[in-house]
Amino acid sequence: MPTVTQDLNNLPDVQSELDGRGMPIQRVGVTDVRYPICFSSSESTQSTSGLWEVAVSLVREKRGTHMSRFLEVLSEFEGVQTLDTLFETCVQVKERVSAEDAFLKVQFPWFVEKTAPVSKRIGKLGFDVEISVSCGRACGTEVFIRVPATSLCPCSKQVSDFGAHNQRCELRLSVRFSDGEMISLEEMFRIAERSASAQLYSVIKRVDEKHVTEQAYSNPKFVEDTVRDLAESLNSDVRIEWFKCSVENFESIHSHNAFAEIISE
Amino acid sequence: MPTVTQDLNNLPDVQSELDGRGMPIQRVGVTDVRYPICFSSSESTQSTSGLWEVAVSLVREKRGTHMSRFLEVLSEFEGVQTLDTLFETCVQVKERVSAEDAFLKVQFPWFVEKTAPVSKRIGKLGFDVEISVSCGRACGTEVFIRVPATSLCPCSKQVSDFGAHNQRCELRLSVRFSDGEMISLEEMFRIAERSASAQLYSVIKRVDEKHVTEQAYSNPKFVEDTVRDLAESLNSDVRIEWFKCSVENFESIHSHNAFAEIISE
Amino acid sequence: MPTVTQDLNNLPDVQSELDGRGMPIQRVGVTDVRYPICFSSSESTQSTSGLWEVAVSLVREKRGTHMSRFLEVLSEFEGVQTLDTLFETCVQVKERVSAEDAFLKVQFPWFVEKTAPVSKRIGKLGFDVEISVSCGRACGTEVFIRVPATSLCPCSKQVSDFGAHNQRCELRLSVRFSDGEMISLEEMFRIAERSASAQLYSVIKRVDEKHVTEQAYSNPKFVEDTVRDLAESLNSDVRIEWFKCSVENFESIHSHNAFAEIISE
Amino acid sequence: MPTVTQDLNNLPDVQSELDGRGMPIQRVGVTDVRYPICFSSSESTQSTSGLWEVAVSLVREKRGTHMSRFLEVLSEFEGVQTLDTLFETCVQVKERVSAEDAFLKVQFPWFVEKTAPVSKRIGKLGFDVEISVSCGRACGTEVFIRVPATSLCPCSKQVSDFGAHNQRCELRLSVRFSDGEMISLEEMFRIAERSASAQLYSVIKRVDEKHVTEQAYSNPKFVEDTVRDLAESLNSDVRIEWFKCSVENFESIHSHNAFAEIISE
Repeated sequence: MPTVTQDLNNLPDVQSELDGRGMPIQRVGVTDVRYPICFSSSESTQSTSGLWEVAVSLVREKRGTHMSRFLEVLSEFEGVQTLDTLFETCVQVKERVSAEDAFLKVQFPWFVEKTAPVSKRIGKLGFDVEISVSCGRACGTEVFIRVPATSLCPCSKQVSDFGAHNQRCELRLSVRFSDGEMISLEEMFRIAERSASAQLYSVIKRVDEKHVTEQAYSNPKFVEDTVRDLAESLNSDVRIEWFKCSVENFESIHSHNAFAEIISE
Repeated sequence: MPTVTQDLNNLPDVQSELDGRGMPIQRVGVTDVRYPICFSSSESTQSTSGLWEVAVSLVREKRGTHMSRFLEVLSEFEGVQTLDTLFETCVQVKERVSAEDAFLKVQFPWFVEKTAPVSKRIGKLGFDVEISVSCGRACGTEVFIRVPATSLCPCSKQVSDFGAHNQRCELRLSVRFSDGEMISLEEMFRIAERSASAQLYSVIKRVDEKHVTEQAYSNPKFVEDTVRDLAESLNSDVRIEWFKCSVENFESIHSHNAFAEIISE
Repeated sequence: MPTVTQDLNNLPDVQSELDGRGMPIQRVGVTDVRYPICFSSSESTQSTSGLWEVAVSLVREKRGTHMSRFLEVLSEFEGVQTLDTLFETCVQVKERVSAEDAFLKVQFPWFVEKTAPVSKRIGKLGFDVEISVSCGRACGTEVFIRVPATSLCPCSKQVSDFGAHNQRCELRLSVRFSDGEMISLEEMFRIAERSASAQLYSVIKRVDEKHVTEQAYSNPKFVEDTVRDLAESLNSDVRIEWFKCSVENFESIHSHNAFAEIISE
Repeated sequence: MPTVTQDLNNLPDVQSELDGRGMPIQRVGVTDVRYPICFSSSESTQSTSGLWEVAVSLVREKRGTHMSRFLEVLSEFEGVQTLDTLFETCVQVKERVSAEDAFLKVQFPWFVEKTAPVSKRIGKLGFDVEISVSCGRACGTEVFIRVPATSLCPCSKQVSDFGAHNQRCELRLSVRFSDGEMISLEEMFRIAERSASAQLYSVIKRVDEKHVTEQAYSNPKFVEDTVRDLAESLNSDVRIEWFKCSVENFESIHSHNAFAEIISE
């Protein structure tokens, strides 16, 4: 316990003390940080609220890192962010605290404009995005999205004299791009929703409801079918170096969910 | 800041200080307390984990209440709890801290045994329960449950040449019983699920899937239909003094939900 | 089940059917709708993602309401929203479906600029906002915010020879304004955080950490103290007609939370 | 669309169809399944509610797996489960659907009895457990727990003339045991909480509050210190083959969290 009043201009730097336990730390930083972001997907630019994680690795000799600098980096943001500027920010974090590695992750909602299939009404549909960047001994960027859609059960359709159970499903897609390549958030969304029994729209009228009901009924898919169709699209896309994709059905005839996952080799 | 070491046998009681702001507090206590519970619904007795809130009102003169006593009350639990013993516990809380009112709330999962409609396979289905008790200037017990089921859209069925969109839905039901009456958690569950397009089961085989698919298709209901059918059952039940019921559809053709709510007069 | 192909220009309007159950529905609509919002608090204008609920009451004679129109209303949004335009939107919803009452609720994150107390570093701090509007037989607007802050325990300080347990707390504040009055989201935030042991900042350096640590230690408050201090501020503010306020401490020496709540008369 | 009524005794098995896409699926199954569990940690046996995920891998030739059998396996549970019986269940799942691999995961709350340090009051403290089992081409069992505790900031203590910010923290620990070894859930809990600034108790009186306040103040730790101390304990325990541990502080002077993570080599 300090017994005398501290000199404000010369406060001790406890984080910079030497550490004797001889143990490096793979990842240390701040998480659940809310900070605004204005992001450009190349198809659109949107201002929204981000949920951030900023971290670094810590060498065995140092007791702590200086986390206030991670917040300073966020507070210095100006203008429109892109995958490239987020990577540069990650490099900046690494340099600010002289770390060997830095990691940056941001989640935010994104809106895509959808046109109803028959009535042509236009509206926005929101989906979740998470971008993860790392630099240092390993460098890379991974983009993850969650896409809501409709799935209709082939078994239920086949065994029933009429009707077929269907439900909201969620397609999840993580992607690392090939060198120099990029796919916009909106295009990733479209690639994913094409694999489902039917797509969702924002504003739909009765003519659209008829259309999507019949479309789903004509296009029954197990989670296994949907995840395979999605993986097939991703496999054949030369812009994609690696992916992980999954589908989860919020089963209408169960209180639990069905899921399937494929990771590229 | 204390300047001398405190006498362990005579620590100051800061909560008991007088408060000069002249303001009573309606509710003060602990929340998000995890404590095990063994509860009897009268149809079954189940041991599980409860999430508790225990609170009292505070008169204008007192600075604080003694929350450690609320935890003592939970730690003294013995044997099987019922609606009656939970009410007695609430009274005990009120008396332990000499409050005018006490409030007790506990949430826990409950399992009901379900038999598949055709294959007769047996399995357990879980649902959420919340019991709220108050005593003092107002006394009462309220039981709330959430019941998963299937809903099928009448409009989609009517306008489509084949198929109909359907989805998981949740029926929510809060009930206060008439004097001397009680309805078991399992019976409340059955009352609720009867109002949906189709019920859920735990283990179902192909013959059951055919049955529930066709049942839902033959029994299309908007959220408005479901909530009215549920309210009708509750209105006609003399054991029920007051209710609030609602239905939420996790729409398969939307990324948002539809809901409807009726509160008894 | 339809046996012939429907005429697209003349699809049946199932929602408009008459209902014979003779039961009005207090609230029916859509919830968990994500739609962008650009809002002006009068102190700042921010673009972000909203989570919406739009509902109406339904008379006993009508089977259903037309929920697609609620989405149309959201999709027609243009320009900057305020408390006034949200009320107008609510009126518009009521009229579009000829209902007696309409209800509109939107949640979104809001950012306030904070200047660290000693280093004067500037950064943004995010908090939750929820605006609820109703029109029809009852009209009103309620603004709710959640404000993170620090609380330090007076009992722990008093009984301990050194130190005192402290923790993050959350102040919650619902307000209805007096006729013709308004308080900006930022001012509501400042009113709330003043009642805590210490405020939070976005970017803080060691000199600021010293400041807020000592400030909290010099300003110990139970949840009872904090909620009374907040209620006192609100009571004496003529711009406020009604309020409900509460405080929850994420206790550092417990795995549960402490809370207190005061509702204005 | 079926045109004639199906023969109930001879419904088509759509899942067993051949699949021509030539793509194996790493993981397919059910998730978010609630089912009761009675588990023995070897120190205690507790009945509670589990949240289950049951999955298998699927060969390229088969269109789908038979998920209803996963629910049958859960519904056949009898008696007390252990790490060993959960592994046997996983093997059984694999065999029931003739898969190459099976995966089983269950989360449940667990309660440990704690005695307050001075008053010796006894009460239960709840924490989260997740057990993951896999069998087939790779076999293994991983036990994960979340342990709430108190952390106190060394920098805040050092720079401040009095007081120090502290907060609830969570230690997370995933462990794979060496051949033939096992550590009870309760012992894992004790290993974790020892690394924090102070432990939590269920029921505490003023004398205990003084004790833990002073203990935390005398034992300041960054997330970096806590995770290194925990990793040191785990490294030196021959019963542990592999671990991943992390600490997250719900910072009292921030609205975001600090975290640190170490994975064993």
